[in-house]
Amino acid sequence: MSEAPEFNFPNLSNWGKWGKDDELGAANYITPEVIINATRLVKKGKVICCAIPLDKRGPVHPARDLPEHWMRFGAGDYALGAPGGGKIPEGGVKFGDDGIHLSTQSTTQWDGLAHAWYGNEMFNGFSEGFMRNPNFGGLRRLDIAKFSSQFVTRGVLVDVLRHKGAEALKGSAIITAADLDATVKAQNVDINSGDALLIRTGNVPHWYGLKDKSRYWKDGHPGLGIDTAEWIHARQISAVAADNVSLEVEPSSVQHPDAYYPLHAVLLRNLGVMIGELFDLEELSEDCAADGVYEFLFVAAPLKIRGGIGSPINPLAIK
Amino acid sequence: MSEAPEFNFPNLSNWGKWGKDDELGAANYITPEVIINATRLVKKGKVICCAIPLDKRGPVHPARDLPEHWMRFGAGDYALGAPGGGKIPEGGVKFGDDGIHLSTQSTTQWDGLAHAWYGNEMFNGFSEGFMRNPNFGGLRRLDIAKFSSQFVTRGVLVDVLRHKGAEALKGSAIITAADLDATVKAQNVDINSGDALLIRTGNVPHWYGLKDKSRYWKDGHPGLGIDTAEWIHARQISAVAADNVSLEVEPSSVQHPDAYYPLHAVLLRNLGVMIGELFDLEELSEDCAADGVYEFLFVAAPLKIRGGIGSPINPLAIK
Amino acid sequence: MSEAPEFNFPNLSNWGKWGKDDELGAANYITPEVIINATRLVKKGKVICCAIPLDKRGPVHPARDLPEHWMRFGAGDYALGAPGGGKIPEGGVKFGDDGIHLSTQSTTQWDGLAHAWYGNEMFNGFSEGFMRNPNFGGLRRLDIAKFSSQFVTRGVLVDVLRHKGAEALKGSAIITAADLDATVKAQNVDINSGDALLIRTGNVPHWYGLKDKSRYWKDGHPGLGIDTAEWIHARQISAVAADNVSLEVEPSSVQHPDAYYPLHAVLLRNLGVMIGELFDLEELSEDCAADGVYEFLFVAAPLKIRGGIGSPINPLAIK
Amino acid sequence: MSEAPEFNFPNLSNWGKWGKDDELGAANYITPEVIINATRLVKKGKVICCAIPLDKRGPVHPARDLPEHWMRFGAGDYALGAPGGGKIPEGGVKFGDDGIHLSTQSTTQWDGLAHAWYGNEMFNGFSEGFMRNPNFGGLRRLDIAKFSSQFVTRGVLVDVLRHKGAEALKGSAIITAADLDATVKAQNVDINSGDALLIRTGNVPHWYGLKDKSRYWKDGHPGLGIDTAEWIHARQISAVAADNVSLEVEPSSVQHPDAYYPLHAVLLRNLGVMIGELFDLEELSEDCAADGVYEFLFVAAPLKIRGGIGSPINPLAIK
Repeated sequence: MSEAPEFNFPNLSNWGKWGKDDELGAANYITPEVIINATRLVKKGKVICCAIPLDKRGPVHPARDLPEHWMRFGAGDYALGAPGGGKIPEGGVKFGDDGIHLSTQSTTQWDGLAHAWYGNEMFNGFSEGFMRNPNFGGLRRLDIAKFSSQFVTRGVLVDVLRHKGAEALKGSAIITAADLDATVKAQNVDINSGDALLIRTGNVPHWYGLKDKSRYWKDGHPGLGIDTAEWIHARQISAVAADNVSLEVEPSSVQHPDAYYPLHAVLLRNLGVMIGELFDLEELSEDCAADGVYEFLFVAAPLKIRGGIGSPINPLAIK
Repeated sequence: MSEAPEFNFPNLSNWGKWGKDDELGAANYITPEVIINATRLVKKGKVICCAIPLDKRGPVHPARDLPEHWMRFGAGDYALGAPGGGKIPEGGVKFGDDGIHLSTQSTTQWDGLAHAWYGNEMFNGFSEGFMRNPNFGGLRRLDIAKFSSQFVTRGVLVDVLRHKGAEALKGSAIITAADLDATVKAQNVDINSGDALLIRTGNVPHWYGLKDKSRYWKDGHPGLGIDTAEWIHARQISAVAADNVSLEVEPSSVQHPDAYYPLHAVLLRNLGVMIGELFDLEELSEDCAADGVYEFLFVAAPLKIRGGIGSPINPLAIK
Repeated sequence: MSEAPEFNFPNLSNWGKWGKDDELGAANYITPEVIINATRLVKKGKVICCAIPLDKRGPVHPARDLPEHWMRFGAGDYALGAPGGGKIPEGGVKFGDDGIHLSTQSTTQWDGLAHAWYGNEMFNGFSEGFMRNPNFGGLRRLDIAKFSSQFVTRGVLVDVLRHKGAEALKGSAIITAADLDATVKAQNVDINSGDALLIRTGNVPHWYGLKDKSRYWKDGHPGLGIDTAEWIHARQISAVAADNVSLEVEPSSVQHPDAYYPLHAVLLRNLGVMIGELFDLEELSEDCAADGVYEFLFVAAPLKIRGGIGSPINPLAIK
Repeated sequence: MSEAPEFNFPNLSNWGKWGKDDELGAANYITPEVIINATRLVKKGKVICCAIPLDKRGPVHPARDLPEHWMRFGAGDYALGAPGGGKIPEGGVKFGDDGIHLSTQSTTQWDGLAHAWYGNEMFNGFSEGFMRNPNFGGLRRLDIAKFSSQFVTRGVLVDVLRHKGAEALKGSAIITAADLDATVKAQNVDINSGDALLIRTGNVPHWYGLKDKSRYWKDGHPGLGIDTAEWIHARQISAVAADNVSLEVEPSSVQHPDAYYPLHAVLLRNLGVMIGELFDLEELSEDCAADGVYEFLFVAAPLKIRGGIGSPINPLAIK
């Protein structure tokens, strides 16, 4: 079909697999049994946060807006006296209150299934016409609020950086399906239906370590190549995340003038596989290397933004 | 001491209990063993979201700002053609991107330990001077990012509404320690060190059901009375949340002209017990009533807002 | 033509009048001579602000967002000491810095010519396809930045409230062309090409005086009827503003199921006449009644928002 | 006095000059006669906008936030059909609606008298304690809304760039009182009480022309030296603005370890002289050079932000 050129892999598809009204996609692989089993992976009682700090210092794409955070009021106001100019009573309770303003994808986040599509249909054939501004009907299908009970599943760290070494992941190195295979084999961990994969590329710490960040966005970054789509689909992965900006390699591994974030198109639109970005996998990597256990209970619930495309998240790996 | 009048219960204190540098407070009760045990409560593989939708329709206090949500761009833009005025290439990937703007406490949220204090010190004696605007040093102690690996613990629903009935919880009914005791006894559930308690008052669904919401803020709401502080402290609870706006009853149960959200002061400032508000406990209540099981794995991680006071959350009960 | 039903007055049109590329519409009536003459109206050296305060208390349509304003940092931060915790040096300069967040039409504002249209074309035939999100090409025609040197012209207060009396303007009273005629005649003022008209209805002070504002939006408000379009067109008015929410009467004076703010369509889309709303005309009204002079130099420049539809303004009447 | 070191020029002061309650400062120099005379300067009927575009491309200090602008809804939404999914009726009026979010000083702006002070007092001795967060009483003295009928006065362009040449204003060149004298003399224009001065340094166009902007903030910029304070005071200037980021030269012309934006302190806090920044004076400069007339009617009203420190503005020079 004309709307689905080869580089978008139209044959890789989960459309209709869970019914024509399904909005959860590959999250359907997370059965009750998967959830129960995932909880049994917790042996140490250790919780590892996989989020970067939500502040202005992270690798936010220049096309997005830096997160803002402000005090609506706080200690400084009380230090100047009561609002009317009087005195705060002794023992009077004081309050601090704050606000945030952000592009939903300007920090550790889920992309949401409606984030990318091609032709006129999003995942499972839902018309792009369902995507309106929140003040004009909003996103009525595939919005992130539909995932408000996701993701609770088995997580697996795929520590490509540790396996291949930093030298191999410089520049815009492509991580291939073979790399994923080799890494999980080296880690001695199996991949199961419903798993969430966390791919470590080292790109997020690379950003924080850069003194001159001006070239960062021109240099591209390492990430998944297009051939991982089939690998992910075959293994019934529910979600894939990485410690980089776009999950997939930039510039794209596909050589076609019209190809633009093709892995986003295949994962989100064809397969309904959620994409996570800007994860911080450093602590998790150290812990997994230390105990040799690369599987864990993974919990990463989006905010219940009605009509939202994506959401900032704080993903937890619980071992 | 003059700065701590009786109604702030200065004798109820966890200051110094976990060292003078501790910023986690009662979250310290959540030991690895508590976490492991909590995961073993998962028997059905069912995840229940306890968040209200993040949109403009929720019970946001008039002193706060309604959450805003907008499309940075989306399907409508593509429907009008490519940005330059040209045609989108066939199979060309399209993107939707959005943003949010909110008071951190304008939806289901954690208050954060720095949200309330009295005198010049916050929990564990940290000076209120640590609370600056984010553009002026920020909140350098007790900020919500310190809790980025919290809360993963055993949760217990205390379904006061179901136990006492809607008639008893009308208006600004005080939920007392005795009510908590009676409810957990009726539910046949024990309370353990490290537990997070979810108190159901029915106030959030009451808001959504109100046709005329103009009197809601004047009418007050049911919530915890001040005598629950000691009860919570004695049981080493790590966090307490409710399906109302302020956790504690409004107007206050304390009869003193200077008393102002006294339970906030005791829980957050004296005890370091995190407060959750605007939870939606309806589905959880139905599930617990159906299977008679009121305990579950509770996971509710804040966004990792560096210097943040509170955070919107999506709390999950996993059974 | 099918796209222009009668109630949209397709025959009232300025399309092409100033060339096919014109984006200024009726602002073209403001010739250098008009500007010079307007400045000569200044006799007292008195400046009257016609803006309502930009805060949360104004009559902001519930479908829009209340303006927010916050301190990025300020005196309270310094009161707690230097950012690093140290002391502010003696004589050290301190700074206050703030931010705002608003719907452009949530306070005294210009609507902008792209605010309303019908069919697929905006004023002067520009395709609605020029209206994209700012992150997707933006509004490339008729944006408010094109008016960054407007409006400097002769202003005339049309004090309908004073002429007809408050009783006549209760509820959703229609102000007709005949009312405008009668008022300017009573005021003994002529109307010239290029004039900006300020219509006083009393609705803005009515809002501020209302104790219970809950019915305000249901009750409608007085405003211009559809027959004023021809009157405005014939007199070559450059801009029309009022002290109400929508300039035109609500509900509409047009009895047709599809009619929806028809005067907006005629003025903005057909005629290119800018619309101003939420003006405060109380002080101006008192001054004009006192000295009997209803004409003045009117200056009301929008912010130069590139790609902006509307803009908050502070309109000045200078007498 | 210890709080007023010499570099803050405590002897240059307008405190008390217009009474102890005065909040307008040097704007008091703008008498009705000044206003009337200024309007008579209009000879050509030409309006020149002195604002840079309000978008993300301007020279916004990295410590501030870039302006954001978004569509609340617009043509793209209608292109996808009516909100409920149906059809827009023929001739049905469509609307576009947008929003903005900005640091008040992230574009062409007035600083406001409360923007800078030293010791514990702002202009005219008002305690810094009047400066609270808007949600905690707000800024109750010297806020920008007090200037909602300002500035309408005579403006004079002081085209230092044209007079001294670009080479002389490279880097962080200091513009001295002697430079101002020489420039106005060369321009053959006098300076009168109440005037607003617009100082052209060329820094704003320098920013836009820079290909690599990464060094801009480190390099400093040309601006007024501290000795201009006395010059400005002696001539009873009401407001001073420039086409640079800070009006005064950066780094400071004062050699003292504690000196920090000393001209801000003297102008705003001691003298009550409003400061304007990020002006675009290119078109005005060309016009003035062409006709040899450097005086004009200047109108630059701030938004009426209640409790606001500064405000974005669109300053107009009318010749």
